[in-house]
Amino acid sequence: MLKKLLLFALAGAALFTIGILIGHFSDQKNSSSPLPEWVQEVAQDVDENLIEKFIASGGQRKQIEENPSIPHMATTAGDEATVEYMLKRWQDRDTGLDAAWREDYRVYLSFPDKDKPNNVTVVRGSDVVGSIREKEKAYRAEQDDPEVVQPYAAYGPAGHAKGINAAPFGVIGVLVYTDPYDINDGKMSDENETYPHSWYLPPSGVERGSYSTSFGDQLTPYLAAKNDTYRIDEEDITGVSPIPIQPIGFEDAQMLICELDGSEAPETWQGSFPCKYNLGGPGFKNTSHFKDCDVQLDVYNKAEIKDSANVMGVIWGSVEPDRYVIYGNHRDSWVHGAVDPSSGTAVMLEITRILGQMVKTGTWRPRRTLIFGSWGAEEFGLIGSAEYAEEYISKLSQRTVAYINVDISVFANATLRASASPIAQDVIFTASKQVKIPGSDTVSVYNNWMQHSNRTSPTHGLIPNMGYLTGAGSDYAAFMHYLGISSMDIAYTYDRSKTRARIYPTYHTAYDTFDYVSRFIDPGFTSHQTVARTAGNVLLRLGDSILLPFKCSDYAESLEQYLSVAVENFEAELKTNGISMEPLKEAVKSFRTAATSLEQTISSSDVVSNSPLKARRINDQLMLLDRAFLNPLAFPDKYGFRHVIWASRSSSVASFPGLADAVVKARTSGLKQDWSQAHKHLSIVTQAISGAAHTLTEAHAAL
Amino acid sequence: MLKKLLLFALAGAALFTIGILIGHFSDQKNSSSPLPEWVQEVAQDVDENLIEKFIASGGQRKQIEENPSIPHMATTAGDEATVEYMLKRWQDRDTGLDAAWREDYRVYLSFPDKDKPNNVTVVRGSDVVGSIREKEKAYRAEQDDPEVVQPYAAYGPAGHAKGINAAPFGVIGVLVYTDPYDINDGKMSDENETYPHSWYLPPSGVERGSYSTSFGDQLTPYLAAKNDTYRIDEEDITGVSPIPIQPIGFEDAQMLICELDGSEAPETWQGSFPCKYNLGGPGFKNTSHFKDCDVQLDVYNKAEIKDSANVMGVIWGSVEPDRYVIYGNHRDSWVHGAVDPSSGTAVMLEITRILGQMVKTGTWRPRRTLIFGSWGAEEFGLIGSAEYAEEYISKLSQRTVAYINVDISVFANATLRASASPIAQDVIFTASKQVKIPGSDTVSVYNNWMQHSNRTSPTHGLIPNMGYLTGAGSDYAAFMHYLGISSMDIAYTYDRSKTRARIYPTYHTAYDTFDYVSRFIDPGFTSHQTVARTAGNVLLRLGDSILLPFKCSDYAESLEQYLSVAVENFEAELKTNGISMEPLKEAVKSFRTAATSLEQTISSSDVVSNSPLKARRINDQLMLLDRAFLNPLAFPDKYGFRHVIWASRSSSVASFPGLADAVVKARTSGLKQDWSQAHKHLSIVTQAISGAAHTLTEAHAAL
Repeated sequence: MLKKLLLFALAGAALFTIGILIGHFSDQKNSSSPLPEWVQEVAQDVDENLIEKFIASGGQRKQIEENPSIPHMATTAGDEATVEYMLKRWQDRDTGLDAAWREDYRVYLSFPDKDKPNNVTVVRGSDVVGSIREKEKAYRAEQDDPEVVQPYAAYGPAGHAKGINAAPFGVIGVLVYTDPYDINDGKMSDENETYPHSWYLPPSGVERGSYSTSFGDQLTPYLAAKNDTYRIDEEDITGVSPIPIQPIGFEDAQMLICELDGSEAPETWQGSFPCKYNLGGPGFKNTSHFKDCDVQLDVYNKAEIKDSANVMGVIWGSVEPDRYVIYGNHRDSWVHGAVDPSSGTAVMLEITRILGQMVKTGTWRPRRTLIFGSWGAEEFGLIGSAEYAEEYISKLSQRTVAYINVDISVFANATLRASASPIAQDVIFTASKQVKIPGSDTVSVYNNWMQHSNRTSPTHGLIPNMGYLTGAGSDYAAFMHYLGISSMDIAYTYDRSKTRARIYPTYHTAYDTFDYVSRFIDPGFTSHQTVARTAGNVLLRLGDSILLPFKCSDYAESLEQYLSVAVENFEAELKTNGISMEPLKEAVKSFRTAATSLEQTISSSDVVSNSPLKARRINDQLMLLDRAFLNPLAFPDKYGFRHVIWASRSSSVASFPGLADAVVKARTSGLKQDWSQAHKHLSIVTQAISGAAHTLTEAHAAL
Repeated sequence: MLKKLLLFALAGAALFTIGILIGHFSDQKNSSSPLPEWVQEVAQDVDENLIEKFIASGGQRKQIEENPSIPHMATTAGDEATVEYMLKRWQDRDTGLDAAWREDYRVYLSFPDKDKPNNVTVVRGSDVVGSIREKEKAYRAEQDDPEVVQPYAAYGPAGHAKGINAAPFGVIGVLVYTDPYDINDGKMSDENETYPHSWYLPPSGVERGSYSTSFGDQLTPYLAAKNDTYRIDEEDITGVSPIPIQPIGFEDAQMLICELDGSEAPETWQGSFPCKYNLGGPGFKNTSHFKDCDVQLDVYNKAEIKDSANVMGVIWGSVEPDRYVIYGNHRDSWVHGAVDPSSGTAVMLEITRILGQMVKTGTWRPRRTLIFGSWGAEEFGLIGSAEYAEEYISKLSQRTVAYINVDISVFANATLRASASPIAQDVIFTASKQVKIPGSDTVSVYNNWMQHSNRTSPTHGLIPNMGYLTGAGSDYAAFMHYLGISSMDIAYTYDRSKTRARIYPTYHTAYDTFDYVSRFIDPGFTSHQTVARTAGNVLLRLGDSILLPFKCSDYAESLEQYLSVAVENFEAELKTNGISMEPLKEAVKSFRTAATSLEQTISSSDVVSNSPLKARRINDQLMLLDRAFLNPLAFPDKYGFRHVIWASRSSSVASFPGLADAVVKARTSGLKQDWSQAHKHLSIVTQAISGAAHTLTEAHAAL
């Protein structure tokens, strides 16, 4: 009844844009024909004043100080304390989110045995003539905390290896260390050079880590690790070491390396120790006190299946609750993890505090739903985020606009660093132009970034050099590679002209503490604040803009760049093998054409006045663009890597990963079947790009 | 500027529903505040008057008569003529679509050699003492058309096999025929019993077909078969016969079978021939004129890569052009194909003629985009539709609401038959209630259908028995199984109480002609019209309704039915092997809860008056529900089957296919690793159902 009446009534109505209509109503507040509420709501765009206000807020030091400053390795009591802390914060009645809860997975972890510590000794027969430290040296109470986990290589198997020249034909055990040359700019003395005197790693510091090549729970690939989930046999796990491994400090490494005999190691293997690094073929030097000794490695690591929690929080969207912007940071550390991950947690907590307060006071609610994830067991292989992605794969694939990852928020306090899907470059630039660097009212994060790292874009000229997310270095992996959700990873980092350190020196050691952060990484916590302002700005734009602030032409530029590298490196050889690159060139061209055309549509559209379905249509095209590059069969041997543009790559040629790796393999082997695989990968990436271009064309064109 | 003004202006506006607003305007046509056009457009629901008008239209006989009535096997000159005919019709300025075009793929086909016909002979030494017919007997000019392809088994390899007792340990060649018992209700004489006297198959009739277990182009699995696409080696094709095969008529089969010696074949193997069917172990009978003879099979089939065309047509949507309803029918036949596929083509052409006319005269345009596909090379393995799905996988996955397949539209003129994703049951019922059966003003297609085939639903009571799309019998396969698009397959069919024929008897023979259809299948073409009215009704509802006419509670019922069969057949055994079915039960329960909750939301929503984003949100949930059941890794050995509920199944237990097949295998082998696979498939289907349930929950709940 209503419908028929409606159609009849509408037939005679005249044609006006809502812009005109609203102008009319703004003049006639007492008119008898007010607009329905939803017409107003859907026309609300991002509020620049609110963003300015957001940028002006923030107190990250407080966040870090309040955050439980205890060792909180995944699934330990310390981890549980942080779970409860997150829940308390996100459920706070004045500054919390709409809802927060925990989600547990039963995951496969690996720990040292507290009763039987791993050890490395130098033995002559049954005599122990030397041994490495079991613990890192204590300079403050933190290092003496009984909850500090002994240095170990997670997922390295238990086992005993003895020898030094015992295995000429096969390695039977591995000791891992980082040379002071690579981490400490050569500094080695804790009397005045290293922590607690500087940010450098003390001689006894040992980097912990997960020794596995894939991510997610290893017993339940492609399935969420629930109680009754099917698990593969432990012996079927791939990508882990078959032999024992133990990380050691450089002090202990020096003790061993400088005594080694044998031929001289290559120049690039030499480090900062005051000795020649030899390969050790025949064992220790005849002149050494370790002469005729073996090195004995005893590893007692144990695998355990344990409950690990993600803490989830949400602010519901008003106009498009079924569109999600996800912001995440892991919660677990190896030891205290003041930098990794608490520097990121502090940023997330400050962002949620400010937004939560606005929601609780009724001054703001985002257009889209914002989801916050405090991931568990990241250090063991991005497990919490990967299990979340596996459990909610359908819902997340259908609805997620973007994923923002801030893991370590401040590696160092020199400049912003961002890696992302190219579609997000523009919104990161916009945000970074709006935020000023610490201590300046004039220099933007953008300009400072461009000074530290830049490139010349064919479209934009000189711009900051944004990286791609080609690996699985943090929790963006499951979102970017498995789900094809446009992701970004944001942090503050080094001035590369001032240090060679491959990462901040106390990474994954017992020296990554509040004391360390507040004295050496970011005194005053102003870089933390800068990251919060930048990432929060990106979050607000993604959450509130009527049109998503995504630029597909920047994606076209990245594809063109990859194409030109591929042509330069591979075309001649492919041609020799009867394989044409023309279809790939055509595909990239069609992508550029489609991107240009969509951006013309966008710039000529008045999405505020038009039907909200128009903006939704364009937004769906932008939201789903990265999804179009997924191919679940492209990389059968790489768990979770489905994105044919950004999957991990072995080849050093910075181009399409499947193609690059296949050509390099075929080039090496010369085998016909390997060239055939190169052709296959060429077709896969070509059709993925064509398919993505199809999704960018107007809805009614070229169906 | 405008935006800020806008927000300010809106702040003071009062809250009214658009229903009230429209009522207001309907009374005051001269008001100074008319509604913007889009507000009217988005509130237009399906027009029942238009559907009534549509049902009253139609002239299918004309469509069939006009349709080129020549042999049009894929890629032949006859096929090209039908391509041109389709284009002419869909590009007609008065009755055509908005646009129509062809899309070609280079596909791998298989044909007999015109110069060296396949033959089957009975030989004694070098003497030929008998041979089968090379061609079907001509009763009319059609059978004598030189374009009639000789009977053959597509993709059966070329080869020569001789023997009858020559291969006790292995079959070396296969002759295929259909017994008159199974196809002709026992009728065998063309003097008065079979065509041209009835619909039964003449003795020389031979069913052609494709002998391959997978679908889509066989050289380019998962890739669209373009010119430069990577192709696998022919020898790597799986699912085809390694030995020669030849189909023969029952006349020739009788000549051989009734002469066979050996032990008696099982009762179920006996047929209508007036002899005992023996297994033939020792060869022909001693009393036979074929005594001591061999059967010689010479097959000269050749594989060829040829260009095959889809013809595509479109009517653009007005409000949601980025939502597609696809309607398809294949175009290629084996011979004249008056039933298969022209009965379906006639229905599609009549639907597009009526809709095209409405569009051209400006009286109607659908809310969503309607895409029509005239698929090529279906008979060789659903190739045209599969290549289309592979090429446009991203765009189609993101935007397609449903796929309607009408292949053979009339098998027989007794009753409607439909198979579909359960979500589409309701809209098919709605349409079939509105259409009357041929020759009646009172009996609905629905009631007639229920008389012929019904079941008792826990929710609905007695209803027509709609089937599921568990196989790859027609072009719905790529949509349903590969893309997870809710699909349906609609036709008119037999009164099963009146015939045992497994399909209409002249299927894939040279007797499937206009003469046959007009005299035996559907005199008056009224059943064709009934199918057009029903399928067209479904199409209009899917294309025009504000809310998609999909019911997820019907999906819940199907899952519950599959669950109860699984529990009954597998639970005890699984438990014995330490595998719990509780998580699956929980998942199905959570799906039911979510479906109920979504349908409550739907029934309490005034989507006409609300923001169009609300309907869009619900529609996206409904549209993407089948997508949530896709798992590209669940069935690695079955090309294109990704839907974990409806994938093809070997087990006779009508339940979840991966689970059913794995349990049956484990039950047979008793091997631990096979039970492990059963557990894996249990987890896969459990998590798919849970994941689907998540997508049905309110956008903001349980993220």
